[in-house]
Order: sequence, then structure tokens, then C-alpha cells
Amino acid sequence: MLRPVPGFAQLDSESLEQVASGGLLAETGAGQVLFRERTLPDSLYVLLDGQVSLTGTSADASSTVIDVLGPGSSFVLANVLTDEPYLMGAHTIADSLLVRIGAEPMRQLVGTRPAAAMAMMRAMSTELSNMMRQVVDLKVRIAAQRLGTYLLSQVKEPAAERAEFRLPVPKGLLAPWLGCRAENLSRAFLALRSYGVETHGSRVVLHDIARLRGYAGAIQAPTVSDTTARPETEFVDAFRLRSRRSRGD
Amino acid sequence: MLRPVPGFAQLDSESLEQVASGGLLAETGAGQVLFRERTLPDSLYVLLDGQVSLTGTSADASSTVIDVLGPGSSFVLANVLTDEPYLMGAHTIADSLLVRIGAEPMRQLVGTRPAAAMAMMRAMSTELSNMMRQVVDLKVRIAAQRLGTYLLSQVKEPAAERAEFRLPVPKGLLAPWLGCRAENLSRAFLALRSYGVETHGSRVVLHDIARLRGYAGAIQAPTVSDTTARPETEFVDAFRLRSRRSRGD
Repeated sequence: MLRPVPGFAQLDSESLEQVASGGLLAETGAGQVLFRERTLPDSLYVLLDGQVSLTGTSADASSTVIDVLGPGSSFVLANVLTDEPYLMGAHTIADSLLVRIGAEPMRQLVGTRPAAAMAMMRAMSTELSNMMRQVVDLKVRIAAQRLGTYLLSQVKEPAAERAEFRLPVPKGLLAPWLGCRAENLSRAFLALRSYGVETHGSRVVLHDIARLRGYAGAIQAPTVSDTTARPETEFVDAFRLRSRRSRGD
Repeated sequence: MLRPVPGFAQLDSESLEQVASGGLLAETGAGQVLFRERTLPDSLYVLLDGQVSLTGTSADASSTVIDVLGPGSSFVLANVLTDEPYLMGAHTIADSLLVRIGAEPMRQLVGTRPAAAMAMMRAMSTELSNMMRQVVDLKVRIAAQRLGTYLLSQVKEPAAERAEFRLPVPKGLLAPWLGCRAENLSRAFLALRSYGVETHGSRVVLHDIARLRGYAGAIQAPTVSDTTARPETEFVDAFRLRSRRSRGD
């Protein structure tokens, strides 16, 4: 059950069994608080089914939705492994199936098996990338574009020209997640009408996916560009040169 | 020289020497590209003096400033350790003194020494916290509040009632960093006048720090709250109970 979860995918079977053996499985309803901001982690949570909202509070005590997680997510690896207080709280927003794995066994695993530590670093790196993408999107794109990207992420069929689905997240949660007020979310939905987006309550129809993609921007996979093979040679050389000079001083 | 840098502070002396021995020191002027987005890392950079801007590009090719780093920063640990392409580019924005440490020795270190891996995880966790704080701030606070927080972060004396300094970052960079347009930054500076913020070009006077702090919100250190010692007992029990039931099925 843990295999599809980032960080666990690359664990060897023995390590995986070691952590899984101490895991506790539980079903819970919506609205269950899993942990609060600023408390110390005692477990790593893995969401197998359902939805969990991660919320954070700013310096002036306004709180918001940092992320909404679906099946196959773990949270919050960084705090569990480093034994540092959570900077976000977590609660379920749908009936959910969860696994709780003790923080101590997780720390022991990364403390004794370098391969496991590397697997966890990869998972943390993915979390960091997601957070960074949010930062970029919040800085340069307007709410309608962010909403467009979110709606496109709900299209399961990559070649589809048209799609119809229910919003998996209530609109009251979608607005803070996208970083806008409720009235801005309504305006954003209105703005997307010109790009073939139709809504009836939580039901969404995308009539022209290509057109919407053109407006909202395709989600870029972190592909390696052509320049990869060629490091910035001039700089490397200048670097070495100056370096030698500094050493000679 | 590397000791004050996150991730290196907790390394044992032998590990530190091992990575430092292969490091190259260099001085460089402003405007030097260190690496580009989507290339594979060949070195970890450590900034000893100067300033470096990290920039990112959104799906629709708009680019922005993700962060501005000062002395004692390393970048980008996550990509270097996992050997994944950079999701941001880096260039110097002031005369800078840098150390370049080969990616391969860094990976070898974390691959063979669990304590070093843990030190690097801590550093990655700190990066994740900073990014998450940005996400929260961008979602719930207006540009004037974000600017206020930034100005307060420039006050070195914790008990000061008044402060005067030069903006270490050009305004043309401050706007995208704070996630607003140039004209919004001007408006934000105007709005802060009522909170005792005076500016002449890049010179800033904070006449009433307490007042500004009241508006912008104090920067919260991740202190551990009272609830730490008490995990959510009801949930733990319910969890165990349900867990046993699931197993019995």
C-alpha cells in the first residue's frame, strides 16, 4: 500500500517492511484534525484514500490553505525526519484512509540506511519543487490562470479535447488554496467562460481544453533542456583561474 | 568558512574537510549567471559574501524572483543531492565571493555518512519552511504587509525603536521578489508612510518600528506551542481502535 507514495517507492523491501510493520491503519471522517501547527511530529501520515488539507498561519494570524493532498501522499516528511515543529496543520476534508508511521522508526531508518535517506531526500525535493512552483505561480499569474491550471490538472486523459468532472474540492477551500478571496474565485470562473469553461455548482465542463491550455499555460514537467550537457564553461574557467589566484595570495 | 552555512554547521570536521577540500573559491562581479533553469547541477554553490538572485519561470514563460540570498547561503541543495534538474536559475546581483563544491563529492558524502545526510535534510527542511512561509504570505497578505515584513527583517537591533538603512536590493528586484508589479511596490511604500516608513531613493527610515510591526505582523519563529507534549489523544485511540478492527476483518 505504501509503494506508490513518494519516498517509499525507492525503498528496498526490507526497509519498507521495517517501517510498515509499525504502521497503524485507520479510517476517519471529514473534519478530523490530524495535527496542529507548531506541535512536534510523532508520526508520518500517509494518505491512502480521501483528501487532506494542509493549512498555515501567517505572522498576523491569518490562516490559509497551503495544499490539498489526495491519495498517495505522505505528510510532513521534513518535520518528521528532522524532529522539528510542524509549520502547518492538517485535517481531513473527506472520508479518508490513513496510515500512521511512528516518527522514531522513520528517523532510525534514515539514520542507518543511506539509501533510505536518499529516497526521503528525493521525496523532500519533490515537495520543495511543488512549493516553489506555487511561489512562482502566485507571483506572476492571476487567479484565473491559476484556476485554469488547476482545472486542467483534473483532466485524466492527456489527449482529451473536452472534459467533464466534479470539483473534488469545495469552492470555499479552492479560493484560499489558489490564493484568492471567494469573490475573486467567482470572477475567475467568469473570466474562464471565454475559454470554454462552464460550471454548474461543483460540476465543471471544459469545452475546449486546447484553448484553456493556451490561456493557463501547460504544466511543464521539469524536462532537461539542451544546455544540460554544456556547463557554463567561461564561468567555470574564470572560476578556476580566480581560484588559483586567490590561493596564490 | 563553510561552518555558518546551513547543512554544514552540523557536519563533523572530517566530513566538512572532505567536501571543502574539493571546493573552488571565486570572486565574481554582479550579473554573472551561475546556472540556468532546467540544467543538471554539477556543483553546490555557497555564497560567502555578496548577493544572489534565484529566478523561476512559470508555465506561461513569465519569470520572477523566487528568492534573494545573502552571505551564508547554499544553493540548491535539493537538486545537487538528488541529481535532478534545477527548477530555478541563479545569478549574482552584487560583487560576490562564492565557493563551488562538486555535486559528486556531496552525493558521496550523504550516501556514506548518515549523520551528513541528516544535516543536509535539516538544511532542506529549512528551505522548505522558507518557501512555505512565502506561499502563506503571498496568499493571505497584501503587498504593503509583505514589504513591511521585509523592511523589518533589515533591522539588526532587536530592541530598536527606530532604524535607518539602505535597501540592500534594487527596487526593480524587490517588486518581483515580493510578488507585485513596480507600481504596486510604489503604492505599498506610500501605504507604509502612515506606519512611519520614510524613503528617499534606496534609503529607508523606520520611525516607529513597533507601529510597523503591529501592521505587518511580527515574524514568528517556529516556537513550539503548549500543545506539543500532548498528542491528539482521542484521535490516537480512535485510530488504534479502528486499526485493530480493520485488521480483524
